[in-house]
Amino acid sequence: MKIDGISYRSIWLDEDGWAVRIIDQTKLPWSLDVLRIATVDEMAEAIRTMRVRGAPLIGASAAYGLCLALRVDASSDAMERDAAMLAATRPTAVNLKWAIDRMLERLRNTRAEERVAVAYQEAAAIADEDVAQNEAIGRYGLELIRAAQKPGKRVNVLTHCNAGWIATVDWGTALAPIYMAHNDGIDVHVWVDETRPRNQGASLTAWELGSHGVPHTVIADNAGGHLMQHGEVDLVIVGTDRVTRGGDVANKIGTYLKALAAHDNAVPFWVALPSTTIDWTITDGVKDIPIEERSSAEVTLMTGQTADGSLATIQVTPPGSGAANPAFDVTPARLVTGMITERGRCAASPEGLLSLFPERA
Amino acid sequence: MKIDGISYRSIWLDEDGWAVRIIDQTKLPWSLDVLRIATVDEMAEAIRTMRVRGAPLIGASAAYGLCLALRVDASSDAMERDAAMLAATRPTAVNLKWAIDRMLERLRNTRAEERVAVAYQEAAAIADEDVAQNEAIGRYGLELIRAAQKPGKRVNVLTHCNAGWIATVDWGTALAPIYMAHNDGIDVHVWVDETRPRNQGASLTAWELGSHGVPHTVIADNAGGHLMQHGEVDLVIVGTDRVTRGGDVANKIGTYLKALAAHDNAVPFWVALPSTTIDWTITDGVKDIPIEERSSAEVTLMTGQTADGSLATIQVTPPGSGAANPAFDVTPARLVTGMITERGRCAASPEGLLSLFPERA
Repeated sequence: MKIDGISYRSIWLDEDGWAVRIIDQTKLPWSLDVLRIATVDEMAEAIRTMRVRGAPLIGASAAYGLCLALRVDASSDAMERDAAMLAATRPTAVNLKWAIDRMLERLRNTRAEERVAVAYQEAAAIADEDVAQNEAIGRYGLELIRAAQKPGKRVNVLTHCNAGWIATVDWGTALAPIYMAHNDGIDVHVWVDETRPRNQGASLTAWELGSHGVPHTVIADNAGGHLMQHGEVDLVIVGTDRVTRGGDVANKIGTYLKALAAHDNAVPFWVALPSTTIDWTITDGVKDIPIEERSSAEVTLMTGQTADGSLATIQVTPPGSGAANPAFDVTPARLVTGMITERGRCAASPEGLLSLFPERA
Repeated sequence: MKIDGISYRSIWLDEDGWAVRIIDQTKLPWSLDVLRIATVDEMAEAIRTMRVRGAPLIGASAAYGLCLALRVDASSDAMERDAAMLAATRPTAVNLKWAIDRMLERLRNTRAEERVAVAYQEAAAIADEDVAQNEAIGRYGLELIRAAQKPGKRVNVLTHCNAGWIATVDWGTALAPIYMAHNDGIDVHVWVDETRPRNQGASLTAWELGSHGVPHTVIADNAGGHLMQHGEVDLVIVGTDRVTRGGDVANKIGTYLKALAAHDNAVPFWVALPSTTIDWTITDGVKDIPIEERSSAEVTLMTGQTADGSLATIQVTPPGSGAANPAFDVTPARLVTGMITERGRCAASPEGLLSLFPERA
């Protein structure tokens, strides 16, 4: 997508053809810092400190990280060691392990002197496939936005957290249909949930929509229900971290509340996902998906920009008050209108998902 | 209630018997600044700048403001002028007008030389009646908390925004049952919704519960649904700004989302209110209660304490992104388990409310 008129991906090869460029997402939305990553250690640090984040982007980053490692030492021993080191940077990121396994599978059967070239090919394929997959999601979601148009009125889409292009290599998942609608000239406007405690909506989603030129308005997470009650939301599109074979949806904390409000007001609630997000081994999301409890400091502290342009961290709770911080919640399939995948749309049910992915039956 | 073991009200007469003491609530939770208010202009400023806030406390503050005015000039002309000035400090606060009207009704029929004494009597009565009313709400709500006890387990109550003692003269509304349960030795714990965008939960509710010694945990507004799904909430108690005769509840933005989650998980959802909050003239809350749209700066900016103890205001959104800020929402009566009033509990329905207030039939 675009930043002030210039097209970007979230990760790309530098002009020299081997070093990697990324956007330092820890600096967003305050400044656009493009970093040159020239060693595997730099890439590992970037993943670990969340300069790159979002499952698909982490996968592509790790793949390129292995390329950088192989340039220094393409022996099997070094490759296995560096791959393990990369895999440990974000232990719970499924895509990270998937991308490294895919690279290793290809490279273990490749002679050491050819590994660098093959690795770059494979990393590029991982990145390109992510873009193609998200573009397909965008295309299937675009039809929903198109259908929601009413003469002379803008289409209002509500989203939660950040499932945008900077969480992937390009397009994003939940935001892909929105970018496509905007690029096609549809008058689309996005209600951006702030997404406390980490504010990914207020910072990342607002930033990327604004940079591309998509009209949007930030709202407190509390406001969505009221807006739906008053007809101000035509559809909700969110991303997901994990979907059960029955269509239960784990996503950023607070998603469930928006699904309830959508259901109560007959607002369609769609979940956009690459099929790699589906965990075919579990059925009951509320019972079987473990929810990460993150640091209470994410609730009690907040970082932003002061009037003089510097960044500051403030405490928003009294010194003696503790905080709890469940990072995700699970939206039961009964509240989900449907899924938007790279193979098309389907109902949030075992039958719905199997209709698109019959090989999983 | 108590602050570090010492009993307070939110407004009281100074030792000299005529000046008024208040807690500067704009400084909470960062510091406990008790202000001496000696003139009507100081009181007007305190109301206008929200050093005192919460409908019942604003009413009592205005009543004492009029006392201070009459000490300087007890003539009818001055009294009417000062009363009008006080009434204009927060134009939409119903309790403010109610308290001033009550004072004027009493004082207009009082000779000028007796007005100061009568005014102090009436202001004290307004304050004492608020305390008695909230104590009654507390007593009726306490029965719910008592009934929710399970052997060996604490009772978990979730609340939204601040309907605590510092929003009233004492006890509060939604928090009154909680203080009473805690004082009675019941093991009660409160989930405190942060309540973006103004953070009244994270700042005021957390502060007053902590100061009194009530166990509590601050959570992002997004977290309540997940906690209810997992049995971590035994009941919800919230306050309200306005209730229709049918039991629809206008309260701080986000209340509706918690009511939906409570309903979805069979968690009782109670609303605590003095009966003055009931607007007997309207029936359809979602349609007929106008919702104030407040400044977008409340969403985009946040104030808190930096590590060095100073206060700082930070921006949490990108410079180019706008924000919307509806301040309240309406929870339909169908989602409300019941009302806790000073006359007892009732269903959130016309019949329920009329059973307690038959004079409104």
